[in-house]
Amino acid sequence: MDVGIVGATGYGGADLIRIVQNHPMVHNLQLYSSSHAGESIQDSFPHFQRLSRTELKEIDPISMGESLDVVFMATPAGISSELTPKLLAEGLRVIDLSGDFRIKDSEIYEAWYKKKPASTKWIEQSVYGLTEWAKEDVKEARLLANPGCYPTATLLGLLPLVQQSLVEEGSIIIDAKTGVSGAGRGLSAASHFSETNENLKIYKVNQHQHTPEIEQELARWNRRVEPVTFSPHLVPMTRGIMATIYAKVSESTTEEKLRRIFQDSYQRAPFVSVRKPGNFPATKEVYGANQCDIGISFDERTGRITIVSVIDNLMKGAAGQAIQNLNVMFGLEETAGLDFLPVYP
Amino acid sequence: MDVGIVGATGYGGADLIRIVQNHPMVHNLQLYSSSHAGESIQDSFPHFQRLSRTELKEIDPISMGESLDVVFMATPAGISSELTPKLLAEGLRVIDLSGDFRIKDSEIYEAWYKKKPASTKWIEQSVYGLTEWAKEDVKEARLLANPGCYPTATLLGLLPLVQQSLVEEGSIIIDAKTGVSGAGRGLSAASHFSETNENLKIYKVNQHQHTPEIEQELARWNRRVEPVTFSPHLVPMTRGIMATIYAKVSESTTEEKLRRIFQDSYQRAPFVSVRKPGNFPATKEVYGANQCDIGISFDERTGRITIVSVIDNLMKGAAGQAIQNLNVMFGLEETAGLDFLPVYP
Amino acid sequence: MDVGIVGATGYGGADLIRIVQNHPMVHNLQLYSSSHAGESIQDSFPHFQRLSRTELKEIDPISMGESLDVVFMATPAGISSELTPKLLAEGLRVIDLSGDFRIKDSEIYEAWYKKKPASTKWIEQSVYGLTEWAKEDVKEARLLANPGCYPTATLLGLLPLVQQSLVEEGSIIIDAKTGVSGAGRGLSAASHFSETNENLKIYKVNQHQHTPEIEQELARWNRRVEPVTFSPHLVPMTRGIMATIYAKVSESTTEEKLRRIFQDSYQRAPFVSVRKPGNFPATKEVYGANQCDIGISFDERTGRITIVSVIDNLMKGAAGQAIQNLNVMFGLEETAGLDFLPVYP
Amino acid sequence: MDVGIVGATGYGGADLIRIVQNHPMVHNLQLYSSSHAGESIQDSFPHFQRLSRTELKEIDPISMGESLDVVFMATPAGISSELTPKLLAEGLRVIDLSGDFRIKDSEIYEAWYKKKPASTKWIEQSVYGLTEWAKEDVKEARLLANPGCYPTATLLGLLPLVQQSLVEEGSIIIDAKTGVSGAGRGLSAASHFSETNENLKIYKVNQHQHTPEIEQELARWNRRVEPVTFSPHLVPMTRGIMATIYAKVSESTTEEKLRRIFQDSYQRAPFVSVRKPGNFPATKEVYGANQCDIGISFDERTGRITIVSVIDNLMKGAAGQAIQNLNVMFGLEETAGLDFLPVYP
Repeated sequence: MDVGIVGATGYGGADLIRIVQNHPMVHNLQLYSSSHAGESIQDSFPHFQRLSRTELKEIDPISMGESLDVVFMATPAGISSELTPKLLAEGLRVIDLSGDFRIKDSEIYEAWYKKKPASTKWIEQSVYGLTEWAKEDVKEARLLANPGCYPTATLLGLLPLVQQSLVEEGSIIIDAKTGVSGAGRGLSAASHFSETNENLKIYKVNQHQHTPEIEQELARWNRRVEPVTFSPHLVPMTRGIMATIYAKVSESTTEEKLRRIFQDSYQRAPFVSVRKPGNFPATKEVYGANQCDIGISFDERTGRITIVSVIDNLMKGAAGQAIQNLNVMFGLEETAGLDFLPVYP
Repeated sequence: MDVGIVGATGYGGADLIRIVQNHPMVHNLQLYSSSHAGESIQDSFPHFQRLSRTELKEIDPISMGESLDVVFMATPAGISSELTPKLLAEGLRVIDLSGDFRIKDSEIYEAWYKKKPASTKWIEQSVYGLTEWAKEDVKEARLLANPGCYPTATLLGLLPLVQQSLVEEGSIIIDAKTGVSGAGRGLSAASHFSETNENLKIYKVNQHQHTPEIEQELARWNRRVEPVTFSPHLVPMTRGIMATIYAKVSESTTEEKLRRIFQDSYQRAPFVSVRKPGNFPATKEVYGANQCDIGISFDERTGRITIVSVIDNLMKGAAGQAIQNLNVMFGLEETAGLDFLPVYP
Repeated sequence: MDVGIVGATGYGGADLIRIVQNHPMVHNLQLYSSSHAGESIQDSFPHFQRLSRTELKEIDPISMGESLDVVFMATPAGISSELTPKLLAEGLRVIDLSGDFRIKDSEIYEAWYKKKPASTKWIEQSVYGLTEWAKEDVKEARLLANPGCYPTATLLGLLPLVQQSLVEEGSIIIDAKTGVSGAGRGLSAASHFSETNENLKIYKVNQHQHTPEIEQELARWNRRVEPVTFSPHLVPMTRGIMATIYAKVSESTTEEKLRRIFQDSYQRAPFVSVRKPGNFPATKEVYGANQCDIGISFDERTGRITIVSVIDNLMKGAAGQAIQNLNVMFGLEETAGLDFLPVYP
Repeated sequence: MDVGIVGATGYGGADLIRIVQNHPMVHNLQLYSSSHAGESIQDSFPHFQRLSRTELKEIDPISMGESLDVVFMATPAGISSELTPKLLAEGLRVIDLSGDFRIKDSEIYEAWYKKKPASTKWIEQSVYGLTEWAKEDVKEARLLANPGCYPTATLLGLLPLVQQSLVEEGSIIIDAKTGVSGAGRGLSAASHFSETNENLKIYKVNQHQHTPEIEQELARWNRRVEPVTFSPHLVPMTRGIMATIYAKVSESTTEEKLRRIFQDSYQRAPFVSVRKPGNFPATKEVYGANQCDIGISFDERTGRITIVSVIDNLMKGAAGQAIQNLNVMFGLEETAGLDFLPVYP
């Protein structure tokens, strides 16, 4: 396969490169950057000393169309909506890691993103690539909208129950916590070390743009789901997302029954693990790897289930899931290039 | 005043010493330790170089009764229930930072703490010292049960609404996050740096012993409150607690009305600040100081209020609140010795 | 005293405010900012909730001259060299926390700072305020150049031996480590959380602008001192500097003799502590406080002494020492307003 | 190959498992633990969810001799000296990650380790496996003493110059900094989060047991090397070692010439990178990978070279180098199983 990465100097790009360079089916990797074209990738990422010196190229849809099979867009919001249609026009398949093609309803997109939406035509054709829940669609996708980090953790934790109407549709609360790398490599006060270290913040309370993405995908599996409460927090660590999810169960049940629902949902999912009773995943237990670990607890006192869903935001929440989708799109083994374990401690 | 600290070599002890040595009304401070008696406090805490070399004494109720007015118990669970009655018998007043005298119902204590409760007689006489909500009782207390760190943040964030029945009594969820110092100075895998750094964990899901303390005190102000969901998380930082609290409002309202309730509740509370609309406290903004900062957001889409309550777990969550109670108990200015600002960044 | 702070929205400003608001002799504090004039200090620093709402003023030397006694300049390099002469002309005394007036030789300043030096006249009149070694000069200072953070830790650790020619003048190596707050509040890739957390970097190897400041002050006490090797490192923490200093002793000696030199040098210094044999200070043991702790080890195998000197870069390395100098300049108790202990843990 | 790991539940064990499970030539991996035998590896390391459930076995040299080719000893000091001879007697080859067989002189071992040395016979036969400098010996090794983490970083940074007598033999100072995982998984106050986070400490000043290991190996390449000064520091991060090394050059030279010596030394070393002029490695740039990155600066003012050598203490400093030695011992490609890149950020 011939693969290109646009936005190679960001954090999503770094993890894509790390995976792709060891992927058994990728023989040609090209890196693109509008801001750093002409430089080598090692100028941006000195940790790639052992990678052969690779020059960052200008983005040019025509020459890309001639030499590549697929392009990853690891770009900030608002870039892909412009560039991706040009790449598609050249016959390329595109895996978009940004949020530009995820929201199907343009009005909702504008309301939450405060940005002009991408063209309706391409939004309609795009496939929302939460791999475990969309495998057949992913196979056929020409434009794949790779899910956001928070929605990935949340949806993998909620869909088994929501699909079967096992929770009250108006009772869902998602208390989410992320490492700082989720904010990307661009400088901001919120990512300034002295403001973030030894500190815990909540942000965009009831206003985060991943809220409609979560609601859209929940509704795909259960039309009656009501608006959710979604609260993102910034934790003084680099990688990792934990979504602590609360919901009322809709009928009398036991923790054992609920756990079995999860196990059944994911028994053929190589990257999702359901923890044993009493065992909950910590973010570091998925550090650097493409996996989602899920723990559950049902509390009879309150009738609520607590679901703890954990991913590495740059892996299952971005680059890792993107490669997983690449594998499915091209008929490869789903785990190709992704069969490595977390780095711990 | 003549003041003693039992358990001076723990983290609660360290912050008590830091405050007391600058307290305008304390002229004599004695330190006690069962495990380190005979050593100097600087052997345990080298950061006290500028404090005069002070020897840790054996715990002896009789001589303590002769030389002291009040004793702080900064001891692990299960110590104070034995020792405090002896100190009270000598005529001392006691401020207990442990959980031994907080839970009024002995069966509930045993069920959650898995420990033998203190004697009923003293539990009945103890005053639960959430200063802002118990000032008159605190003034008279001979045995003051200083609130737990999580309950302090939670109750200060919830009581204004719960007292007035402004939230649905069955809808309360507390997603709490703490720094690691809350686990104390005793060694444990959960406090081992390599297991904790760059990691986020949930623990004691639906089983934390602060749950009944929260429920007991909510019920004191509103009998109809139902069991709450309480989820503690361990954040890779040393100090700080954030309680993110969710509840359904019980009647049609606005964020402005809700904010006014908070402002009214705390207008005479020197250590509680209610943030402006859109502004939420971060844990580091109270680092090292005795204060609780509260932010709120009401979401019309879901009918839920989100309350963010932040303290330094060792200050307003332990030593700071203990000194605040000392001041009230002895008729001093409530802010005496506590009028310093957070260390930031 | 009437005190002004220029640059109140930076980290040096924050610690100055924290100290000054509890200083017994300061009754009027005015805050100035060119970029944030008209806003309140709480807009920049929400951790000041408990401080009365204070407006940031425009910098105006004439009105400042009328209402103030002394001004702290907590500004980035190159600002003070312009503004301070105007304040001095109005009769104000100035304590400058920037590096603009520290280097006496303008050519050396330009070579290391790559900036235009301040006017020779004022550089000559400025007093280098390493309080413990310059008390008589500080008393008379109208323009006080507050020492840099690295030089403070280094000079306090070296001067006792250098003054008495007890180390070989060509053998001095300073391996220095700082927390990230030393880089200030301005955004930079080097202070971006994801690039700094769980990372250790060396920077400006043999090129740091504090090198000539160290050499100038060593030479003041011993003309034969040769150029030193100075290597700054960036440690993933917010506050703290450790200077690990290596030198060959110039004559046969023992650790005990060397320790006594240090003890004699600092026996009347309330903010310098010399540790016991085998005991070395850690940076957190001075967190938030104005003090310098020093440990030493003499190695007979190599004939080298290792000196470990530790400060909080924002306190004894900036704001704390500035207040200490204020006290001396105005004939107050040296410890006024500074007699609080480190925050630990 | 059939491979065993003794001490699988420690941090060295975790990284060995991570690498070996993806190693192309290892078809059978057995895990051993004296303290956790009978449990599964996931009980100790929940991050291994995606690994098939593997039971930890009792250590039994006879059955190990029958089923294995090689054993990794990832055990605390003092275990391997007892167990390894039994494994060797069964015909196994052993790669020992502990310090038990590194020091050739038993008196020196006892003086620094305060422990009984291993039997002289096996110490003599052991090969010190600093792979880049001992490849021929490693090929033949039956008992391989895998180098310590500090010595690996230090020796790779010094040997190119020491071998050619390009530095003054009495001028070597190593200021070393490590992440906390170097202290292992055993609980200790020095690894307690609240004592370590936001803190920087120096420890074992002039007394660390890696000092004689460094001196022994330097002397192997240059008999005239004198005792070195070695100062280890503990940095608030989990992984990573930086050795900042200082030495006087022995003759007039230039940075360019010195850099060429390094480049020549390591031109065939796949895991050592020499950085460009002005470029220095940070610890995170080797996070999770088996590599050593080296930067140098020559200062004409002082005649000193500063060498910055960086590794991941658990990889090139332990498990990674152990696998590299495995590859050489068994005639495989040196990079087999190790060709993955650092995790960044």
